Amino acid sequence: MQDRIYNFSPGPSVLPEPVLKRAQTELLNYHGSGMSVMEMSHRSAIFEEIFSDAKAKMKEALQVPDSHEILFLQGGATLQFAAIPMNLMEGAAADYAVTGSFSEKAAKEAEKYGTVHIACSTKESGHDHIPPQEALQLSEDAKYFYYCANNTIYGTEWQYIPETKASLVCDMSSDILTKPVPVEKYGLIYAGAQKNMAPAGLTVVIVDKRLAGREQKFTPQIMSYETMIRTNSMLNTPPCWCIYMLGLVCDWLESQGGLAGMEKVNVAKANMLYQALDESKLFTVSAEPGSRSFMNVTFRTGNEDLDAKFVKESADWGFTNLKGHRSVGGMRASIYNAVPVEGVEKLCEFIRDFDKKN
Amino acid sequence: MQDRIYNFSPGPSVLPEPVLKRAQTELLNYHGSGMSVMEMSHRSAIFEEIFSDAKAKMKEALQVPDSHEILFLQGGATLQFAAIPMNLMEGAAADYAVTGSFSEKAAKEAEKYGTVHIACSTKESGHDHIPPQEALQLSEDAKYFYYCANNTIYGTEWQYIPETKASLVCDMSSDILTKPVPVEKYGLIYAGAQKNMAPAGLTVVIVDKRLAGREQKFTPQIMSYETMIRTNSMLNTPPCWCIYMLGLVCDWLESQGGLAGMEKVNVAKANMLYQALDESKLFTVSAEPGSRSFMNVTFRTGNEDLDAKFVKESADWGFTNLKGHRSVGGMRASIYNAVPVEGVEKLCEFIRDFDKKN
Repeated sequence: MQDRIYNFSPGPSVLPEPVLKRAQTELLNYHGSGMSVMEMSHRSAIFEEIFSDAKAKMKEALQVPDSHEILFLQGGATLQFAAIPMNLMEGAAADYAVTGSFSEKAAKEAEKYGTVHIACSTKESGHDHIPPQEALQLSEDAKYFYYCANNTIYGTEWQYIPETKASLVCDMSSDILTKPVPVEKYGLIYAGAQKNMAPAGLTVVIVDKRLAGREQKFTPQIMSYETMIRTNSMLNTPPCWCIYMLGLVCDWLESQGGLAGMEKVNVAKANMLYQALDESKLFTVSAEPGSRSFMNVTFRTGNEDLDAKFVKESADWGFTNLKGHRSVGGMRASIYNAVPVEGVEKLCEFIRDFDKKN
Repeated sequence: MQDRIYNFSPGPSVLPEPVLKRAQTELLNYHGSGMSVMEMSHRSAIFEEIFSDAKAKMKEALQVPDSHEILFLQGGATLQFAAIPMNLMEGAAADYAVTGSFSEKAAKEAEKYGTVHIACSTKESGHDHIPPQEALQLSEDAKYFYYCANNTIYGTEWQYIPETKASLVCDMSSDILTKPVPVEKYGLIYAGAQKNMAPAGLTVVIVDKRLAGREQKFTPQIMSYETMIRTNSMLNTPPCWCIYMLGLVCDWLESQGGLAGMEKVNVAKANMLYQALDESKLFTVSAEPGSRSFMNVTFRTGNEDLDAKFVKESADWGFTNLKGHRSVGGMRASIYNAVPVEGVEKLCEFIRDFDKKN
């Protein structure tokens, strides 16, 4: 059995080792209950404590105001692509900023439920940057403004929060819990758990309660924010194991100095990696300066064979999942919260070594 | 740390101990990969093998014909309550057999998408039985006939497969994988995983591919059976950990003689428990003979204080989750696949002891 590997997967992604170890220890018998968390009735007192603990820790970590509710849902971002317009569009219109593949998919799905205005699109330049505030086309009739905070495939990240009259709706699937966020500025934030929060199968939605109750008539009950707020995400059985894991991850986050502490580490990791790439003769970073992601660093040599060689040799260094997304090629290092600094240091070493030898 | 407990939870429920032990062993490093299954990209070769293995094992266990596709989805039965009419009703009508709380909820949700005919309702008699074939009111315009095979709250189970002209749609959330089923007779079978298959967060749908592609226009992409069949349940990130656990459970099932072997054990467990209750002077089984569930045995003393005493004392015997559903009171022993025979034997002993002393 080999040791743990440095896993740069874009998602599902590496989890903190202390979290996995705790889950392993408690797996057959959680706190002397004689049960695994996977075996607990979601209505039992013991699970309700796990549930409310995880929620309280999320609220604390992100400083979620009382005006907003934290929901633990299923279905991933793809389900939210439909749930958001069903609940918030009121059959009218919304603005969508298309800065990558996932915001494009969200905009397309929303067309089923009303009029979609494209506030900006970076498609023509291969989604290599995030447009500035003044480039955003905002509509008068938009019920909300939608954007994806971090584009995992293209390696770009919004470095500012858009200013809009309409409610802000944001897909934070790949950068939630990686830095402090002023939640009160948002109408709705959502994120799939599988990058920085928990195993795949949990979607966290943070919604301003004042926006609930506007869903279209054909909205499935389970997709109604109003219903899920009213039932405290327990209309039906929630993804219990993922919620438990999220609680453990929040404990670990706290031990890292909370989101402020985590942000410092993340900035250091990203800067270190971008510096190694910028200083190389071989590698080009895909994203423009000023739009570069702190989570997903995308780069290439410009030579497909050399890219393939890099990915192949990376395995010898104890790395995995450095291949770029199949739609864009090249390389991608996803350096989420749980990727240790040593992993990024070692990756920089490999980059310098590869640069020298090729 | 106390030993493992006898867990009669209706769901999420007990998992086979060998399955939990294997998951525990592999938790930090699956088969020498240096990763947890929770950390794997769902597009990686190593996870794709876990995924296709679990699917192949389900296909083998249930003898799923090639005409049908197995989908690994999220959202539980509650999401299927909407997905089924959205996909199969074509805006027209369907027949619903209401034999419990969940089929009633399904029928109510379906009203959003077309005309719901109630083929039968056992509500007036407290859902204490399953109506016979001749009592079912079948409609000419029904696109499908919907029923819930086993009613966890009321302790009833269909002992026959309804004969209908319309496609059969069945919620098998609480008895899938507990006995062989002629899948070819069904248009669609679905089940939440959290009773007999895996931890909560996975919904298995087995759908006749010939029924796909009829969804209403406003159907979210993730709820379209056609889309999920086409993408092999990988339109987005699936609930990877639950799928892995399902594979382990299927391995365990095989070691128990497959579904035929499992059925023998389940029948023996249920008969043993019903016999102990029928022979007592104190306890009454809630469900009528001929409609009794082999999975959820519901019973009561007729005296609420005595019921409470039974539940309280059951803890001293090393049992948990024997309280009936909050809507009906009394007691409920859920004796799913993973509840060991010894657990049921010991429960019978407690029932006899309690009967003698009270």
